[in-house]
Amino acid sequence: MSKQKLSIGVDLGGTNIQCGLVNERGQIVHRGSVKTKPENGQAAVADRIAQIISTVAEQGKKKLAELAGVGVGSAGAMDLDKGIVLESPNLRWKNFPLRKELEKRLGVPVVLDNDVNVGAWGEYKAGAGQGFDDLLAVFVGTGIGGGLVLGGKLYQGHHQTAGEIGFITLDADGGLGRRKLEERASRGAIANRLRRLVETNHRDPVLDELTGGDLGKIRSKLLSEAVKRDSVLVKTVLEEAADDVGVAIASAVSLLSLPCVVLGGGLTEALRGWWLDRVRTSFEKNVFPSNLRACKLRISKLHDNAGVIGAALWARQVLDKNDQKDVKLGKK
Amino acid sequence: MSKQKLSIGVDLGGTNIQCGLVNERGQIVHRGSVKTKPENGQAAVADRIAQIISTVAEQGKKKLAELAGVGVGSAGAMDLDKGIVLESPNLRWKNFPLRKELEKRLGVPVVLDNDVNVGAWGEYKAGAGQGFDDLLAVFVGTGIGGGLVLGGKLYQGHHQTAGEIGFITLDADGGLGRRKLEERASRGAIANRLRRLVETNHRDPVLDELTGGDLGKIRSKLLSEAVKRDSVLVKTVLEEAADDVGVAIASAVSLLSLPCVVLGGGLTEALRGWWLDRVRTSFEKNVFPSNLRACKLRISKLHDNAGVIGAALWARQVLDKNDQKDVKLGKK
Repeated sequence: MSKQKLSIGVDLGGTNIQCGLVNERGQIVHRGSVKTKPENGQAAVADRIAQIISTVAEQGKKKLAELAGVGVGSAGAMDLDKGIVLESPNLRWKNFPLRKELEKRLGVPVVLDNDVNVGAWGEYKAGAGQGFDDLLAVFVGTGIGGGLVLGGKLYQGHHQTAGEIGFITLDADGGLGRRKLEERASRGAIANRLRRLVETNHRDPVLDELTGGDLGKIRSKLLSEAVKRDSVLVKTVLEEAADDVGVAIASAVSLLSLPCVVLGGGLTEALRGWWLDRVRTSFEKNVFPSNLRACKLRISKLHDNAGVIGAALWARQVLDKNDQKDVKLGKK
Repeated sequence: MSKQKLSIGVDLGGTNIQCGLVNERGQIVHRGSVKTKPENGQAAVADRIAQIISTVAEQGKKKLAELAGVGVGSAGAMDLDKGIVLESPNLRWKNFPLRKELEKRLGVPVVLDNDVNVGAWGEYKAGAGQGFDDLLAVFVGTGIGGGLVLGGKLYQGHHQTAGEIGFITLDADGGLGRRKLEERASRGAIANRLRRLVETNHRDPVLDELTGGDLGKIRSKLLSEAVKRDSVLVKTVLEEAADDVGVAIASAVSLLSLPCVVLGGGLTEALRGWWLDRVRTSFEKNVFPSNLRACKLRISKLHDNAGVIGAALWARQVLDKNDQKDVKLGKK
């Protein structure tokens, strides 16, 4: 029934709210964005989300009730059953019932999930993971998050926190701060590492020039530019991070015998092939042999849109299923 | 239909073939065992397996055709669809079509799977994992293997090698031989470590006495005895191994958000509470916080019988499902 319908996806970040009207093939037909401005408080952010959703629906000449669903992907810890953001440092939220607040404002059902979960779902339904009913999506950006699709279903786990690949320990003998993947290979960890190296006199002319001496400026694009200009320091640190990502993915694939891993996130997008090749080499060295040839490592196909498209397609999935449940109940 | 029936499970090891007639609650009602004698060749081992199965069925006054199924759990790499043991160093087998060979001898359908997979299934259906539809079972013995139940189903993964927790990397910066869990915390790795320490003059009077100077004698029970007698060297090495197991389990639980992990295998069985406490402390330090309180770590309830009971219950599961498929086809 809803196959022909459009759905709306929202990627809720600490800085921007991205919104898109998405068709069943995962293409964005209209889009919009506003600043999040979390400093104005929870209710104000909910207002802004509801506003951009309404605006994008209007652009597509759709009433909200005509849509297959509205989905929101957000960072932070959540109670998915109740639609509550339990804690989100980016948004400065604690125990905010986002789903209820949006449903009140919009008058239609809203589906809330983790940003990396909906990203994984988007890559599975319309991106680099199409055709693989089991996959892990790993997003390397400021932090490192992951989402799992197993048996064609989003696998959320018992406490709904599945996919936390950033929490895989890579150095059991190591001290605090360099034990886990996220502490070693996220863009945040890489920036910290570079800062510490520069502070201990590991100077690098390329990095000096690009940052103008302000290492707070290190973002993924700057790192990519430093690689292009052949910065020895940046390349060394990034190579170590890529090696770590490859090792963690190898552990996950050894445990789950997966046929596909999709790599996304800001750092992956900025470095692309250079990064993927290094990750793959490390993966192949460390994975359980039977998975070596058959597991495909792929770069995200949805890029920055994975959150918006994934949230839209995930809302369609969840609400379709609810529809079917209603039908079944109706038959009784 | 087969609810009232018994099934037979076989635990095929390199030294012994254990066999049991098992009821639907996972209790062994008759049992038998023979030496494997792999040196006599593949066909001779198949003969011996078929023989002990027939003997145990006779003891229970059952004809094979009256049983709900026959299941065999074996170590080694397998093609589960074809029922072939691809490679098993213990058995000295390569590409042996064990299922076909047993079906030829017995005249009834046989189900073949990995020993750790059926062990995990046994703990789920009749052991320490009862009631947890998602669980990881970790068997620490000569090597380290694991099996996963997800959503109430045995999760074998795309290449049917899921559960290989021994392949999780714990020291990404480390050299060959001490990177992976199995290389660090299996009984084999522990014995090697102790040998190397003694060879480099780390003498320990308790260990000297127990081994009589022959470190080839190190087995799980000897290690347990050394702990009881307060061997500093043995306790230190075992504590490090337990820490490693806790870290690897924490990584797996962070990735999968599991409510339960069952610990089994020879080393776990020998050390029990002492081992579990140390594993748990390390687990709690390393796991993603939301899983901390809610994930139960438990010692195997089936002990040495996990393989036999698991194989019997798994055969029941697979063949029941096939029965149901037949019924559905019959309805058409």
